[in-house]
Amino acid sequence: VTASTPAATSTEPSVLASQFAGVRGLTETLAEVLSPEDQAIQSMPDVSPTKWHRAHTTWFFETFVLGPHLDGHECHDAAYGYLFNSYYEAVGPRHPRPHRGLLSRPSASEITEYRAAVDRCVLDALARDALSHEALALVELGLHHEQQHQELLLMDIKHVLSCNPLGPAYRDGVAAGSIDGGTREWRSHPGGIVAIGHDGHGFSFDNEGPRHDVLLRPFEVSCDLVTAGEWSDFIADGGYHRAELWLSDGWAAIAENGWEAPSYWRRGDGRWELFTLGGWRPVTAHEPVCHVSYYEADAFARWAGARLPTEAEWEAAAPLEAESGIDLTVLHPTSDASSSFFGQVWQWTSSAYLPYPGFAPAAGAVGEYNGKFMVNQHVLRGGACVTPTGHTRRTYRNFFPPSSRWPFCGVRLARDV
Amino acid sequence: VTASTPAATSTEPSVLASQFAGVRGLTETLAEVLSPEDQAIQSMPDVSPTKWHRAHTTWFFETFVLGPHLDGHECHDAAYGYLFNSYYEAVGPRHPRPHRGLLSRPSASEITEYRAAVDRCVLDALARDALSHEALALVELGLHHEQQHQELLLMDIKHVLSCNPLGPAYRDGVAAGSIDGGTREWRSHPGGIVAIGHDGHGFSFDNEGPRHDVLLRPFEVSCDLVTAGEWSDFIADGGYHRAELWLSDGWAAIAENGWEAPSYWRRGDGRWELFTLGGWRPVTAHEPVCHVSYYEADAFARWAGARLPTEAEWEAAAPLEAESGIDLTVLHPTSDASSSFFGQVWQWTSSAYLPYPGFAPAAGAVGEYNGKFMVNQHVLRGGACVTPTGHTRRTYRNFFPPSSRWPFCGVRLARDV
Amino acid sequence: VTASTPAATSTEPSVLASQFAGVRGLTETLAEVLSPEDQAIQSMPDVSPTKWHRAHTTWFFETFVLGPHLDGHECHDAAYGYLFNSYYEAVGPRHPRPHRGLLSRPSASEITEYRAAVDRCVLDALARDALSHEALALVELGLHHEQQHQELLLMDIKHVLSCNPLGPAYRDGVAAGSIDGGTREWRSHPGGIVAIGHDGHGFSFDNEGPRHDVLLRPFEVSCDLVTAGEWSDFIADGGYHRAELWLSDGWAAIAENGWEAPSYWRRGDGRWELFTLGGWRPVTAHEPVCHVSYYEADAFARWAGARLPTEAEWEAAAPLEAESGIDLTVLHPTSDASSSFFGQVWQWTSSAYLPYPGFAPAAGAVGEYNGKFMVNQHVLRGGACVTPTGHTRRTYRNFFPPSSRWPFCGVRLARDV
Amino acid sequence: VTASTPAATSTEPSVLASQFAGVRGLTETLAEVLSPEDQAIQSMPDVSPTKWHRAHTTWFFETFVLGPHLDGHECHDAAYGYLFNSYYEAVGPRHPRPHRGLLSRPSASEITEYRAAVDRCVLDALARDALSHEALALVELGLHHEQQHQELLLMDIKHVLSCNPLGPAYRDGVAAGSIDGGTREWRSHPGGIVAIGHDGHGFSFDNEGPRHDVLLRPFEVSCDLVTAGEWSDFIADGGYHRAELWLSDGWAAIAENGWEAPSYWRRGDGRWELFTLGGWRPVTAHEPVCHVSYYEADAFARWAGARLPTEAEWEAAAPLEAESGIDLTVLHPTSDASSSFFGQVWQWTSSAYLPYPGFAPAAGAVGEYNGKFMVNQHVLRGGACVTPTGHTRRTYRNFFPPSSRWPFCGVRLARDV
Repeated sequence: VTASTPAATSTEPSVLASQFAGVRGLTETLAEVLSPEDQAIQSMPDVSPTKWHRAHTTWFFETFVLGPHLDGHECHDAAYGYLFNSYYEAVGPRHPRPHRGLLSRPSASEITEYRAAVDRCVLDALARDALSHEALALVELGLHHEQQHQELLLMDIKHVLSCNPLGPAYRDGVAAGSIDGGTREWRSHPGGIVAIGHDGHGFSFDNEGPRHDVLLRPFEVSCDLVTAGEWSDFIADGGYHRAELWLSDGWAAIAENGWEAPSYWRRGDGRWELFTLGGWRPVTAHEPVCHVSYYEADAFARWAGARLPTEAEWEAAAPLEAESGIDLTVLHPTSDASSSFFGQVWQWTSSAYLPYPGFAPAAGAVGEYNGKFMVNQHVLRGGACVTPTGHTRRTYRNFFPPSSRWPFCGVRLARDV
Repeated sequence: VTASTPAATSTEPSVLASQFAGVRGLTETLAEVLSPEDQAIQSMPDVSPTKWHRAHTTWFFETFVLGPHLDGHECHDAAYGYLFNSYYEAVGPRHPRPHRGLLSRPSASEITEYRAAVDRCVLDALARDALSHEALALVELGLHHEQQHQELLLMDIKHVLSCNPLGPAYRDGVAAGSIDGGTREWRSHPGGIVAIGHDGHGFSFDNEGPRHDVLLRPFEVSCDLVTAGEWSDFIADGGYHRAELWLSDGWAAIAENGWEAPSYWRRGDGRWELFTLGGWRPVTAHEPVCHVSYYEADAFARWAGARLPTEAEWEAAAPLEAESGIDLTVLHPTSDASSSFFGQVWQWTSSAYLPYPGFAPAAGAVGEYNGKFMVNQHVLRGGACVTPTGHTRRTYRNFFPPSSRWPFCGVRLARDV
Repeated sequence: VTASTPAATSTEPSVLASQFAGVRGLTETLAEVLSPEDQAIQSMPDVSPTKWHRAHTTWFFETFVLGPHLDGHECHDAAYGYLFNSYYEAVGPRHPRPHRGLLSRPSASEITEYRAAVDRCVLDALARDALSHEALALVELGLHHEQQHQELLLMDIKHVLSCNPLGPAYRDGVAAGSIDGGTREWRSHPGGIVAIGHDGHGFSFDNEGPRHDVLLRPFEVSCDLVTAGEWSDFIADGGYHRAELWLSDGWAAIAENGWEAPSYWRRGDGRWELFTLGGWRPVTAHEPVCHVSYYEADAFARWAGARLPTEAEWEAAAPLEAESGIDLTVLHPTSDASSSFFGQVWQWTSSAYLPYPGFAPAAGAVGEYNGKFMVNQHVLRGGACVTPTGHTRRTYRNFFPPSSRWPFCGVRLARDV
Repeated sequence: VTASTPAATSTEPSVLASQFAGVRGLTETLAEVLSPEDQAIQSMPDVSPTKWHRAHTTWFFETFVLGPHLDGHECHDAAYGYLFNSYYEAVGPRHPRPHRGLLSRPSASEITEYRAAVDRCVLDALARDALSHEALALVELGLHHEQQHQELLLMDIKHVLSCNPLGPAYRDGVAAGSIDGGTREWRSHPGGIVAIGHDGHGFSFDNEGPRHDVLLRPFEVSCDLVTAGEWSDFIADGGYHRAELWLSDGWAAIAENGWEAPSYWRRGDGRWELFTLGGWRPVTAHEPVCHVSYYEADAFARWAGARLPTEAEWEAAAPLEAESGIDLTVLHPTSDASSSFFGQVWQWTSSAYLPYPGFAPAAGAVGEYNGKFMVNQHVLRGGACVTPTGHTRRTYRNFFPPSSRWPFCGVRLARDV
């Protein structure tokens, strides 16, 4: 069996309850340092307000678990179905995404009540063992869904705060870069037929399967992520002004947006500075570069005489994943070679985001989860410093349009042998 | 001497102090029913967040009175000069207007502190009689400026709340329309040479002068404002679909925006409903129509076989102003013939907003207050239910672009004899 | 009776026939130096292709004269009613204005046939005295209409050709500026009650009446137009970079469009060059400045310590009009003090384009000719070097939005006494 | 050696000369039925005027062959290098693509002279055997380039003419659909390791190599193209109104553009009509559907219970190519099962347009030919009725953004076994 989501889960209700409490609690921990105003702002159409993330993840449990699977469940607020549906056409109309920032009501504290009410229902149902196998699988899916939104919440609030000339920090005490630099060492792979995709043990999203064979040519991947220091060299060498390094669409994006450096970088007094969730600070040479678009990653690779890996190459070369998770004292990538495939930055691959052979989306509304986005995007692999535990699988396929810079996305190089 | 602002004021410091306390207090009263989130949202580029209005009016006193006129004044926060400058080129760069809604910080409560700090300084200076005549005139200007923003605050929060599918009320207990209808009676004026503009007694804005003679032809103005019932007839008669009634730019605005009725109107169950600061309620026949653009006012007048008055005609026909002001239990126009020139709706005139003969803006940065907007706008006269006391002068020149609908603007008809 | 258009004309049919032949012939003379491609291009939405002007003016005669007033007239081509209606809502739907440049068919030569066919019908009807008084008045209106389009044709082809990096001339042998400079002398006017507007003798457009009294204060107007040399001084003095000189909308227009000089100016080798209908050539100091927007005219006047005249002041100060017309060897303004009120450049006035007191548009579709454009525009007076004979009346009201630069518009200053 | 372009060609100069005359002549044949106006219009930014295609293909030979490789060549017109460069950053600045329709000069007949002049130079050089191997390879590349523009010329003029309410035909006598319908039969393929990409014998573009192995799963492809009749069924079944059939970006494209049917379709009297290069005519049931976007192709496949093939599957399943070419009496696809892989419509594949493993663009400016477009596009295979002879290779990779509808693009289905 491949791509089992969300047909069934092997996780016991009591274990699910414990996971549920942990994941739901972490979301609130991430939000609690933010003021009501912080939680209400939408700084660009791609960004959602913090309180919207908090409500939408709750709506997911109410809409897909409590409503259809729990007899007698009463809807918390009928209007929320409209306000907090993200993109599920099958469950009805919804508030337009670019207008999420217009909603001063419900307030952040009303969302807190909403979350508590739904939590009580779900935990009670789990305690009573009142949920079917299908519903339990949806609870598990909902937790993974909420973890994805934890990362989005951090990405989004970073963008919101960066728009403020005051440069406020999300949280104080965030670690400030790293000391040791990587060397540009390469790990070789012999190529051949390799299997990629999820093997069906444990949770996965539907887009990670079916597992299937691919044929690779021999290649090498860099042991280290590209660093901010290397990126400074690229800038200094005219990287943003040499057409021959760029894809045509990337060259147009530079002209349209005036890109001169990664997102969140600015020129300070004779040096580069960057905005982090801990506020503004100087760029350090050895930290992994972060917040670059696919276009920039591709141009950098060409400048460096290398290329980006395909997603199959990445997966074939990646180590077994290390445990990872969000460390609230380290909300920016730091160089640490041993764990750098996971937990620092998402790494752009040269692969367009397309279905694996034999892919079929899950039945029902949750089938809209992944499949309908399989065009005009590129796959990223690995996981970032703001990615929750358990979302740093080798087979995990993250995806964004090639112009995106607000995710925590960086670069790992590859090359032909 | 005409157009005395802001060269001097005849108001005593102690009286000014009392007025200062009253005006500043009313702003806070208007804001205090709003949550921090309500106060942070910007629903379109023309709208400013409530807390921005609260901060900007405070910045005005600090920038134009305390900074230049009070020895030793220490700036409350250096960043506020950038964040809360509205459009004064002479005092430096500023945060772009369409981005005012991106500022979650300073928080609403920090703005409260800012207001309190500046209030203390101003009141202390007034008590010590420490301000020059010029500075006192600027205090007086600042109070009138703040009163203008009180109206803007109400206009703007109405727009913000109207964008929310929940349809929240700004305040409960708002009066619901009116019972008695007006008759279409006309008041005639013989024409001839009449003087218009402010005579220099008491406060006025620079754009109200110089007082000067104009030559009028005989005309009539309607005793009553156009009502919502009459507007419903206009709609039912195809008013929004008959090109011959419309200015060319107005016809294009209909096509572009899909206008079918005044702003804040929607079709309910077999009747029209409108959004007020008290929430949604049915339209009543006899209440003055409100929230129509110049284009709509002009088309309605043509349909009715009449025209809009010029601003000189309006001023010549208007009674001595009645006392008026904001009644928090009546935040929408109601029909009351005796006071309808003032205090219900701003009334579009056919006059473009241009300088009076001999007009010269005030010296210094406050000279940017009015003069530089004298193009592409039309004059409105009268004052609305959300206009503070003392802003309902016969000579007061309000102005908006002809497509504007979010002010409380309505229609009074005129015709040739 | 004032504003007689188009109720009647006192011109005899035989005289009209002669005028008809002359006006229609001039249009073809203006077009004949242009290739089929030149005649097909639309370089911006405001511009119409040459062949469209040639067809539209023909459509005017067929639609308003031949169709309704000549028994048995057969429509030349049923599709032309849709293709060549400009903005008359009353005569049905039309091809969208911004898409006029998409029509490769009918070809320029088919338009030539169309013109010839309609000419034959009109001239035959005039010869047979087969037209009613109303129809004759419409023929006269149609000729004035076509003369307006002659000027538009020249304005528009100038813009088309200017977009070509080859810088082609519309016509060779165009005169190159002027030698003698004007002095800044002023002509004073005592003010008082003066009558303005057309007196009903001879042809006029409906917007020139009713004639009516206005009350003026004493004022002065400059004897000379503002020159290119004075404008260079304005530029050199930072005129385009000093916010205090500009209306707010003008300042925004500079930022949006990057204006640094009048339209059609560019920096050559250490000097300014300008594009004329004779191609590119150096700017000369004493020629009248041309192709400036209202915003620029207003800012220049402020810089010069003066202001723009109102349209009533302009009309009161203007001399009796000199004969003027299009001289194909002089398609650019040249300084010639004696005739400079007429025949050099249209002169921006500070008056918004609004109806005169008592104005009523003509009945029927031709009532859309002027009235529906009376908002968001400013009046220009005088007439330019590309304005046909008879369109340089003292009472003639030309009008354009304040951002317009492609008309031949310049500046005459005024000031208070 | 794979991907030999443009390092060398094995074609003899005399053969090249013959091919050169044929290809260059066909371009002129395609253009000669168009008027100067037809050749000048640009109906959307993606479309280029006919005369621009004629000039640009000539510029290619002058810029890449004559200039660098023929001693003493004198440039025909220095300005043409700017006007007719398409997108080659390496050879300098260029006229912006969306402004190609602003160029009335040079005229169509001047372009004819330009073509003749360059033709003489090239043919003379070939006759004298004066060109190096590299230059000969560039001549061959230039001919393939010109053939691509022949197809673009037809695509583009179709769009231009379709914008005209007169609905003019490009050419009369175009065949009107087909009689026999296809059956939905499937051809199976066993999968396994197959080699794809060009093998280096004969001409190919750089993006067709390197030839390499891929691993396929067993699959089936439909023997017939999707027909207009099947597409009508899709429409009738609500295909354009069922969100579950569509990619998210496709669903947004429908909403934004109001798509209800393929491009160039309109509803006539109770039936569908379509615009062809022969003008408007009824849709026939058995002709291949044409002018659908990737989004529509993908949605149709889902509706039909199938999917689109990958480009590797398409190549593995395709027969050896039949001879094909442009038949001026058949400028629209007709059903003819035996040749339907080639010569009817380009067929969307599910493969994003990305470099093959080991791909390196050609050296020099011609390296910009293909590689820099490898993002945000999908591959199409096969070749259309407007594709010149020799451009219907099995390995040929055509590519367009997924929203494109103006190419002659249709659908062939595939499915898993």
